Amino acid sequence: MNTSIPANPIRPTIPLDRPGKHHGFLKLPYSRNDSAWGAVMIPLTVIVNGTGPTALLTGANHGDEYEGPVALQALAHDLQPEDIAGRVIIVPYMNFPAFRAGTRVSPLDSVNLNRAFPGAPDGSVTQKIAHYFQGVLVPMADLVVDFHSGGKTLDFLPFACAHYLDDAGQQAACVAAAQAFNAPYTLMLREIDAVGMYDTAVEQQGKVFVTTELGGGGSLTARSARIARRGLRNVLIHAGILAGTVEGGDSVMLDMPDDDCYHVAPAAGLYEPMVDLGETVAPGDPLARIWAADRSGAAPDIIRAQRGGVLAARHFPGLIQIGDCLAVVAVTGG
Amino acid sequence: MNTSIPANPIRPTIPLDRPGKHHGFLKLPYSRNDSAWGAVMIPLTVIVNGTGPTALLTGANHGDEYEGPVALQALAHDLQPEDIAGRVIIVPYMNFPAFRAGTRVSPLDSVNLNRAFPGAPDGSVTQKIAHYFQGVLVPMADLVVDFHSGGKTLDFLPFACAHYLDDAGQQAACVAAAQAFNAPYTLMLREIDAVGMYDTAVEQQGKVFVTTELGGGGSLTARSARIARRGLRNVLIHAGILAGTVEGGDSVMLDMPDDDCYHVAPAAGLYEPMVDLGETVAPGDPLARIWAADRSGAAPDIIRAQRGGVLAARHFPGLIQIGDCLAVVAVTGG
Amino acid sequence: MNTSIPANPIRPTIPLDRPGKHHGFLKLPYSRNDSAWGAVMIPLTVIVNGTGPTALLTGANHGDEYEGPVALQALAHDLQPEDIAGRVIIVPYMNFPAFRAGTRVSPLDSVNLNRAFPGAPDGSVTQKIAHYFQGVLVPMADLVVDFHSGGKTLDFLPFACAHYLDDAGQQAACVAAAQAFNAPYTLMLREIDAVGMYDTAVEQQGKVFVTTELGGGGSLTARSARIARRGLRNVLIHAGILAGTVEGGDSVMLDMPDDDCYHVAPAAGLYEPMVDLGETVAPGDPLARIWAADRSGAAPDIIRAQRGGVLAARHFPGLIQIGDCLAVVAVTGG
Amino acid sequence: MNTSIPANPIRPTIPLDRPGKHHGFLKLPYSRNDSAWGAVMIPLTVIVNGTGPTALLTGANHGDEYEGPVALQALAHDLQPEDIAGRVIIVPYMNFPAFRAGTRVSPLDSVNLNRAFPGAPDGSVTQKIAHYFQGVLVPMADLVVDFHSGGKTLDFLPFACAHYLDDAGQQAACVAAAQAFNAPYTLMLREIDAVGMYDTAVEQQGKVFVTTELGGGGSLTARSARIARRGLRNVLIHAGILAGTVEGGDSVMLDMPDDDCYHVAPAAGLYEPMVDLGETVAPGDPLARIWAADRSGAAPDIIRAQRGGVLAARHFPGLIQIGDCLAVVAVTGG
Amino acid sequence: MNTSIPANPIRPTIPLDRPGKHHGFLKLPYSRNDSAWGAVMIPLTVIVNGTGPTALLTGANHGDEYEGPVALQALAHDLQPEDIAGRVIIVPYMNFPAFRAGTRVSPLDSVNLNRAFPGAPDGSVTQKIAHYFQGVLVPMADLVVDFHSGGKTLDFLPFACAHYLDDAGQQAACVAAAQAFNAPYTLMLREIDAVGMYDTAVEQQGKVFVTTELGGGGSLTARSARIARRGLRNVLIHAGILAGTVEGGDSVMLDMPDDDCYHVAPAAGLYEPMVDLGETVAPGDPLARIWAADRSGAAPDIIRAQRGGVLAARHFPGLIQIGDCLAVVAVTGG
Amino acid sequence: MNTSIPANPIRPTIPLDRPGKHHGFLKLPYSRNDSAWGAVMIPLTVIVNGTGPTALLTGANHGDEYEGPVALQALAHDLQPEDIAGRVIIVPYMNFPAFRAGTRVSPLDSVNLNRAFPGAPDGSVTQKIAHYFQGVLVPMADLVVDFHSGGKTLDFLPFACAHYLDDAGQQAACVAAAQAFNAPYTLMLREIDAVGMYDTAVEQQGKVFVTTELGGGGSLTARSARIARRGLRNVLIHAGILAGTVEGGDSVMLDMPDDDCYHVAPAAGLYEPMVDLGETVAPGDPLARIWAADRSGAAPDIIRAQRGGVLAARHFPGLIQIGDCLAVVAVTGG
Repeated sequence: MNTSIPANPIRPTIPLDRPGKHHGFLKLPYSRNDSAWGAVMIPLTVIVNGTGPTALLTGANHGDEYEGPVALQALAHDLQPEDIAGRVIIVPYMNFPAFRAGTRVSPLDSVNLNRAFPGAPDGSVTQKIAHYFQGVLVPMADLVVDFHSGGKTLDFLPFACAHYLDDAGQQAACVAAAQAFNAPYTLMLREIDAVGMYDTAVEQQGKVFVTTELGGGGSLTARSARIARRGLRNVLIHAGILAGTVEGGDSVMLDMPDDDCYHVAPAAGLYEPMVDLGETVAPGDPLARIWAADRSGAAPDIIRAQRGGVLAARHFPGLIQIGDCLAVVAVTGG
Repeated sequence: MNTSIPANPIRPTIPLDRPGKHHGFLKLPYSRNDSAWGAVMIPLTVIVNGTGPTALLTGANHGDEYEGPVALQALAHDLQPEDIAGRVIIVPYMNFPAFRAGTRVSPLDSVNLNRAFPGAPDGSVTQKIAHYFQGVLVPMADLVVDFHSGGKTLDFLPFACAHYLDDAGQQAACVAAAQAFNAPYTLMLREIDAVGMYDTAVEQQGKVFVTTELGGGGSLTARSARIARRGLRNVLIHAGILAGTVEGGDSVMLDMPDDDCYHVAPAAGLYEPMVDLGETVAPGDPLARIWAADRSGAAPDIIRAQRGGVLAARHFPGLIQIGDCLAVVAVTGG
Repeated sequence: MNTSIPANPIRPTIPLDRPGKHHGFLKLPYSRNDSAWGAVMIPLTVIVNGTGPTALLTGANHGDEYEGPVALQALAHDLQPEDIAGRVIIVPYMNFPAFRAGTRVSPLDSVNLNRAFPGAPDGSVTQKIAHYFQGVLVPMADLVVDFHSGGKTLDFLPFACAHYLDDAGQQAACVAAAQAFNAPYTLMLREIDAVGMYDTAVEQQGKVFVTTELGGGGSLTARSARIARRGLRNVLIHAGILAGTVEGGDSVMLDMPDDDCYHVAPAAGLYEPMVDLGETVAPGDPLARIWAADRSGAAPDIIRAQRGGVLAARHFPGLIQIGDCLAVVAVTGG
Repeated sequence: MNTSIPANPIRPTIPLDRPGKHHGFLKLPYSRNDSAWGAVMIPLTVIVNGTGPTALLTGANHGDEYEGPVALQALAHDLQPEDIAGRVIIVPYMNFPAFRAGTRVSPLDSVNLNRAFPGAPDGSVTQKIAHYFQGVLVPMADLVVDFHSGGKTLDFLPFACAHYLDDAGQQAACVAAAQAFNAPYTLMLREIDAVGMYDTAVEQQGKVFVTTELGGGGSLTARSARIARRGLRNVLIHAGILAGTVEGGDSVMLDMPDDDCYHVAPAAGLYEPMVDLGETVAPGDPLARIWAADRSGAAPDIIRAQRGGVLAARHFPGLIQIGDCLAVVAVTGG
Repeated sequence: MNTSIPANPIRPTIPLDRPGKHHGFLKLPYSRNDSAWGAVMIPLTVIVNGTGPTALLTGANHGDEYEGPVALQALAHDLQPEDIAGRVIIVPYMNFPAFRAGTRVSPLDSVNLNRAFPGAPDGSVTQKIAHYFQGVLVPMADLVVDFHSGGKTLDFLPFACAHYLDDAGQQAACVAAAQAFNAPYTLMLREIDAVGMYDTAVEQQGKVFVTTELGGGGSLTARSARIARRGLRNVLIHAGILAGTVEGGDSVMLDMPDDDCYHVAPAAGLYEPMVDLGETVAPGDPLARIWAADRSGAAPDIIRAQRGGVLAARHFPGLIQIGDCLAVVAVTGG
Repeated sequence: MNTSIPANPIRPTIPLDRPGKHHGFLKLPYSRNDSAWGAVMIPLTVIVNGTGPTALLTGANHGDEYEGPVALQALAHDLQPEDIAGRVIIVPYMNFPAFRAGTRVSPLDSVNLNRAFPGAPDGSVTQKIAHYFQGVLVPMADLVVDFHSGGKTLDFLPFACAHYLDDAGQQAACVAAAQAFNAPYTLMLREIDAVGMYDTAVEQQGKVFVTTELGGGGSLTARSARIARRGLRNVLIHAGILAGTVEGGDSVMLDMPDDDCYHVAPAAGLYEPMVDLGETVAPGDPLARIWAADRSGAAPDIIRAQRGGVLAARHFPGLIQIGDCLAVVAVTGG
């Protein structure tokens, strides 16, 4: 009886350490009804030049978040080996099956990649992706940037983010990198339930880690794409991989100090926001109304702010379900 | 052989002409696998007082457009009989099955209600709804307001809209009502392909008709909801049903003079907008880029403006398909 | 340009008029993704002997109603040519695709066969079936028996049924046949909306027509199967096709005089019946309660009898939707 | 590497131990495509007064069984704190996603809650529910009542049930509680395969446990709802939580002594029951016939009783599949 | 009330008559849930040079037949304007939505394009495609070649085909063109049920029409692709559009004189062919066996040849359904 | 806390060791929405006579591969106890749910049975099947034959196969059995990734194991069925279970020495094979072309042979996805 852990079946089709710029795939064998000897082909670009740190850059950890994929495709296209010192590993569509489907979780196994770490080499497709990053790509990196946005069901003020960590030195390095990103807002975050997150997997390996929320709704704007492209270059400059100076204005610091920041829908129905992202609210101000979806004339549920602050995130679709997060009120400074 | 047209099976559960305020339903019998003797129950509010015109007010003609439903629910809740002179018929969720599903077309028959007129009394569910409006509700009305937005796949600058009509007097009345709506923008439109539209059905009955596009993405904002609520009251005031004065600032006139306004995606892929709604472009300016969705490093398709103007509408989702409308450039004035 | 009506493509695989007993199919060519040159094969048994009337006997007009199919399969198996004078045409599974799927309407086109008459030879599968009965089988018949029950979403007291008809002689013949069926209850019915029904199609050809409702819930009982088998033999005896005497006790006459008989669910939720089939109610008695399906502790909706009588039909599933028929209160005598 | 078990993410929105009557939810965070920060909200009512035992009362362990939900909603609505001594925890829709879908197993993970114990805090939604009951709610309880019926595919005589247990004292307490329920029948049962059952999880914690089968078919009757409501009050009276005396007549004891009680379908087809629930059969009596579903005229399979007794359970739908349990013949007494 | 027929909404994105070689699309506007202002983009290549006939060449009339698409893509790529005299219109994927889905009928409306003629300008997507060919492209053509194969559920000997026509001159021209194709076999065919076929639509406009069956199974071989490419060039040479001489050996003439050629599956099950395509059978020879799919050890159904000849077509998948065409036995000569 | 492994719930309905020939099922209890007390019934035939080895014979390990099922049904029907010495256990449809669905993996759990070993007694349906073979049936056997073909997405030259094993004696016995099968080709194979395969599970128990690839495309031919039936008898003769002599000509030995044998699709599109199975290629020869599936006129991707040899396997469907195995070039001899 052999209880050893099987090897991860993913193989890159290009070398991960050869000087120059190579475009290829992470090939994940996937036998299924419509292809007995098929594969999931996750696009990959690796740029190597001279000596310097390694940056691992990922988008579409959730498949319906687009600022990261756009900024990473632009970087993969524009960046030349001679521009850098070190190595840049670009995976614009990390959860590729979810990206192709335009969905948060993978259509192949319904798994949320950002709750699947450390993954499993003999698990489902998403678990294999997580395991490969955990065991192969993250260990190669000094700096890891993972792009997020709100996806189809949430919308966020644009911010880069660092976590409170036990290792003060690592935390300081992460905060410096997040501030270098220079999004309009910067958030310090202590995850309540960090089990299975890519963030945690990366930080536990001692890496400098930056993540973002840059918009949402399953779309992007010219403005949010510019924030993503600029922040990405800023972080690479900050890391010494790219030459130049960090661009952009002063980022506003945000904090979500406690559970009162989160407002939950008490009923299902038609959602009417009363406050827009970035607007300021006082305690008790109406944040939203929920109207009956099956009749007319009934009084709406009114959801009021549990605390004062700035609206940092909100529910996106016009219909809402009981228990959905409806609004997040953050405080500035910190 | 009896070739007479069968009667429309829809029945209101409340009177359409009794003074006071009544909430009920348009009941459409619908036999199906999960309910042999079931029905589609379309919410309906009717408010009657004294003498005056009749306004027929509808939302969710497309089920994923939300400014109209929110404004109409607020009106149905807030408006009292003593506030008005005449009659207000409110159907906030006109294509109710589509509204409940959060989809443009009905999940019951895949029919687009706004291409289903004049409908059929023995057709599919959506065709029966069209036929009932065509034959029963529209004839009762003097003024018809039908709310639209971009839905899940388009985003618009907020505007009210009137059509170029053969009858100059009717056109003038419609333009006056659209301007009274007083959205940030007002558009004059000549539909190329008006076959099957509710707009056409209403206008052919000689009614004053106002429609809108107030946002999109399958969501709404506090701002767009305010525009809808205010515009609705403005139009009722303009019609003499509600007392008061029209509110709001100067509306910008927009025009879409020819087919060059419309820009179509030449390929499928990851969509990166380069211009945001309301921004000005010159001919040849890049409007968007489309990146390969299955590989990294390839050069994007760049879509350039065919004419100068203001970006009035754009594709919404982060992924785009070949043939999708990607951007509409309008001209101001008119 | 040829505007002639195409021929119906259905062909029986056995002769419809040869003496003896033959089992075969109505073969309906059906080209589709999983069979380019496939067919729908509707089981058919024809028994012919000597001279006498023709009876056309059908079950599974709705695919989830089972007393008819069971009684007809038993008859097709047990009945011998020498038992009869005339002809018996047995189609136990009239809407065969719906029967195989266990659904009311056909899974191939979502069409309710009992609203598809007179059908179309070049329409969908269900429309072709309707057209074949309309044009070929019904014209051959003197007596038509079509079995119904409540299906998966309704439950009925067991009754045979005749319609009020313009032709008094035809009506008397139908009533006599329905009474000969001798179910526990017998109902006289004036259909409000008879458009598209098989019943109407048969009656308009001047035939003697009997239909039934014998239970429901998508199941059957030993008792309801016995009622169906016995009633079927009784009607054939009554028609002079089979020798013997009509069996069974006195049938109770029922009437549904007006729309007040029908009680509709005012809201969706968890359905609690307060009265069982066959029980007597007084006006105002609670018929059912509807509890909230998304929260606990809320007061239920109570639905009260609009008139006195006997509970003749009721909603079946434990969940109910707004607009569903919840209960039918009939009156005895008539 | 941290191998500690993560905490269960479910949180009640109301206190579980505060005097009075509170309605709220068990909130289970559930991130998914249509709600990134969504939740499953399982309705919960807690009633606390003075000192006394704790009863944990659950329905919809299987989502298509309705007597329990109805009786528990009525109790949650009617019962007042002053009526009781102790605590009553009511979860009318235990597998809430299955209940909303009207299905036996959860539509979210296809898991049968009653085979998911002891559950897992980081498993699928149903596994999290099981884990929360196992670790939080059951330990609080002295008495546990879990309502079952046959669901959409089985139908049962109405009975309460206790298991043969290794601990004679616990067994006696369970039998006494089941008899106090006072359904028309009472069954003693030794589960063959108890792995994963809620029953086993509760009994292994030493609790007094009562379960039921009260009908089936995915519906309920006025009679079966009365049995459920009365039995529930009887058990609470028996436990000393509610004042009063146990109501109802003499319950018939049933036993299913061996595997010969179970009759299995030898082929797929159209199912014709020959015996109804509660009727007596002798060995060799026909229980049912199965007719061919794809042709007419063929001889049916006849399934005969393997032993004498009373028909206690049967297959429900009109179609049957090979291997389905077709009938259960029980013996009286015991 | 305007009862005029609306115009077909399809527009080519390239000119249909400009000298040179142009690649573009037939753009069919298609509003739907995932693209409000979307389109179906059907690939189109037009090559024009000098004077000469027009050939209209189509593949994927059924979306799972591949020899035509491959030969037409090769032609569109290889053929240069200077190679031809006249015009070649190439639509390699005629029912484009079906082609992309790999299905016989369109996934958008479940319509079989080859039964949808003459189509409708305001019908479903497939009906619009039919109407555009009927009204725009076919009238432009002198020669029409439409490629077919067996698709996923049938397999054929490779043959080109002409129909028996009322116009002897037209028939002779079609036969000459089919023989020029020079597939290994050539078939003369009288369609029994030609209603709605593209073949009929083309022939009724008096055009020279060639169709084929070149294999099947939803695949193609190197050999069948060569037959298609060579046949296509042969026909263009025959028509005088391309210079050169017709290639290939002697084609065997086949005939299907009557209904006895067709053998139908009498039961569903596991299909075992006993004869391969091109093999000769005598009357009574076993063509195939059908084994039970739900049990082992039962005797198979044996299907025997109703006439002698050569096996020209057969069922493809390993499972078969009752009523499926199992085998076609043709006769040689003619 | 009981951590012991639960027993496998599968039970045969016939004895596995009684002399004679018995047909029955492996009954696997399976509770689900459409049958609360249902089962998966896997057909099973056992033939026992005198003393001799036990052969375990399986087909439909993948549900869309048909040569094995046909040969095993013929054997189960034709073979008589007196023909053999020993025992033959026939399971023609090993992954029965996949076989009924015509799919590679099970529709019940999406699990590939041939990657599910050693299985789990409390896992999903496919895992239970694997566990039962692993723990009950394989241990009974001396010889195991498992039939494979290419299924719906691959096509193979017909070969029997043995693996390189650490135990030289076991390997020699397996090679001898594979050669005795006497398919047109015989292959020696070293699996790279044998984790979870039935092959490995059998070989690790020290059994003589033969597997095959006999065609593909989700169909079979008269020729491939003959190869399967003959090979099966040959192996039983070779094992001494059946009397007689091995039939058939000389089998060609094939080898796949390294990864260069495998050719992968570099892009999605329309697949055009340039070489057929069994044809010889030189390095650099074109194996296939891939044409754009969304436009016409673009140059195809050409896939060239990485080595010389014979085409032993190829992609089957007319459409291909990036990463699919497109062709396998084997070398003869070995």
